[in-house]
Amino acid sequence: MKGSSNKLKVHALLWQDEQLHVLDQRQLPETVRYDIYHEAEGVAEAIRSMRVRGAPAIGIAAAYGVALSVKQHYQAESDTWQEKVAVDIQLLAASRPTAVNLFWALDKMQAQLSEFPDNLIQALVDLAETIHAQDIAANQLMGEIGADIVGDAQGLLTHCNAGALATGGYGTALGVIRSAVKRAERNVFAGETRPWLQGARLTVWELAEDEIAATLIADSAAAMLMKTGQLDWIIVGADRIAANGDVANKIGTYSLAVLAKHHGVKLMVVAPTSTIDFDMASGEGIEIEHRGADEFLPDCYAGEGSLVGAWNPVFDVTPAELVTVIVTERGAVFNPVVTGVGELKK
Amino acid sequence: MKGSSNKLKVHALLWQDEQLHVLDQRQLPETVRYDIYHEAEGVAEAIRSMRVRGAPAIGIAAAYGVALSVKQHYQAESDTWQEKVAVDIQLLAASRPTAVNLFWALDKMQAQLSEFPDNLIQALVDLAETIHAQDIAANQLMGEIGADIVGDAQGLLTHCNAGALATGGYGTALGVIRSAVKRAERNVFAGETRPWLQGARLTVWELAEDEIAATLIADSAAAMLMKTGQLDWIIVGADRIAANGDVANKIGTYSLAVLAKHHGVKLMVVAPTSTIDFDMASGEGIEIEHRGADEFLPDCYAGEGSLVGAWNPVFDVTPAELVTVIVTERGAVFNPVVTGVGELKK
Repeated sequence: MKGSSNKLKVHALLWQDEQLHVLDQRQLPETVRYDIYHEAEGVAEAIRSMRVRGAPAIGIAAAYGVALSVKQHYQAESDTWQEKVAVDIQLLAASRPTAVNLFWALDKMQAQLSEFPDNLIQALVDLAETIHAQDIAANQLMGEIGADIVGDAQGLLTHCNAGALATGGYGTALGVIRSAVKRAERNVFAGETRPWLQGARLTVWELAEDEIAATLIADSAAAMLMKTGQLDWIIVGADRIAANGDVANKIGTYSLAVLAKHHGVKLMVVAPTSTIDFDMASGEGIEIEHRGADEFLPDCYAGEGSLVGAWNPVFDVTPAELVTVIVTERGAVFNPVVTGVGELKK
Repeated sequence: MKGSSNKLKVHALLWQDEQLHVLDQRQLPETVRYDIYHEAEGVAEAIRSMRVRGAPAIGIAAAYGVALSVKQHYQAESDTWQEKVAVDIQLLAASRPTAVNLFWALDKMQAQLSEFPDNLIQALVDLAETIHAQDIAANQLMGEIGADIVGDAQGLLTHCNAGALATGGYGTALGVIRSAVKRAERNVFAGETRPWLQGARLTVWELAEDEIAATLIADSAAAMLMKTGQLDWIIVGADRIAANGDVANKIGTYSLAVLAKHHGVKLMVVAPTSTIDFDMASGEGIEIEHRGADEFLPDCYAGEGSLVGAWNPVFDVTPAELVTVIVTERGAVFNPVVTGVGELKK
């Protein structure tokens, strides 16, 4: 991705010298280091290991992964390169289960691949760069749409990291916060987001990189923040949105949604339409990833026969009835429980 | 404390050889180490530094602290020992602000002190040991009362640590869970309880010490646990209960209470009557302790001029209307929002 990203300070992914540079988000905020990938297998591992995370960023990384796979395996005279690419695409598809953008991006790349254009490799690289650039443009547009809706509201809380780090750049939820802060001062709060601490390690880092002040809270303090009148909007991203407007997002989003309803605080979900799974009737069908107990269980309980276990779903589903508005690059849907999100389908 | 504690496995406090042995809870679950105190000043520091925490345990430690102070300073011929003891009592009173048991225990010790009994030091040690023994007996009684109310319910979630480690022994909320598990199998869940991780470090440790299996969850996963029908009761302790039944407890309790109401899950608060502040009309008057940002803010944001701050209230107030039942050693009050807790006053 060149061009519009020049204005942006925070990049999860950079395509340079025909290689994918992936910011290792596991090491933030202490260390800013990019790993360089030449093969799809490495990109799949970067997604699986959460060097790169966030639904749109995963999709973009996978798109570059397909381009790298074809670059590695394509030989005009060989019969087997297509099989090898198919294996790589399988590997990329299996790297994380919940984010629909991953499958959306792989579908787009595969469609291009099957058209077999002249200059195949360049065409695939171009498409991956286009997916990347369009994501940034969509985020900037959603930022403006969301900021219009936020208006003069002061107290904004975000959860997890739906920022530049989770996308091609600028961010979805953090894109709205960036755009809102450009217009007026805000009180920006970030939940630390257990167990992986995306809020504490990523969100406040990228906001500070853009000179935006933020206040970190324990996830369980959000209710008291609402009760004391300090919040107007909760603004989050999404990993998958069902056709009826149900939203799968980072564990804790559903909790915030229920608490927001109780306190009269509004909930904005910001996501590109590539996050919408129009074939999924409701959130009940969305597969929820469970990750290992080791993400938060003290080591001494890891052994066989331990009496202490862990339950670690890393996403949850917020029913549409708790969502005030869904903001996409094609416009905003208020009260999605009434209409679903079908009107956003092209 | 001798006698009844012999049956118990987990001890936050032990009075041995005229010294107070304090389990350093900051080092659990990796290290089990007791620090030994001869002076009130050390006991106040043990409370302030959270070697010992939990409202009843803080009260008991402070009672022993007063006995140690008199033991250190009392000289029959001296005029100044009473001043020195008064300074120590001030120091103990200032060690933590929210738990009312601290002030309750200091008042009891001071009343005994002002009676100036024969064998003053022994009388004060005896009173501290009595406060300690009565707390354990109260917990065992509350355990039975609470288990009666829980009945056959399977799914129990606790928050923070209201266990043996937070009390003289057996625990308040964990006392009910201990008694309930003795009667039948249960699915016991513990929230990890950010930022200090009392659930992850203390609660599952002390349950495992008593051979009780438990499942740890991220605090923000509790809503999904309720939504999926896995919870019947949330069972917590209290740091202070107002006369109208409002409950101050560990940050996140209020969040769980709102979520419980939304999901039809019941909320039990378990606390000895020494936790009730009958002079406090409602929870709005309860001072909420805020602790340092360093409890969860990454170090790189600690400096001057940092754009990243933290908001760290470590308690919150749950309105009586969200509480199903308050269990004390004098009996249970259902729907405290209707009657308050005045009937529990002696």
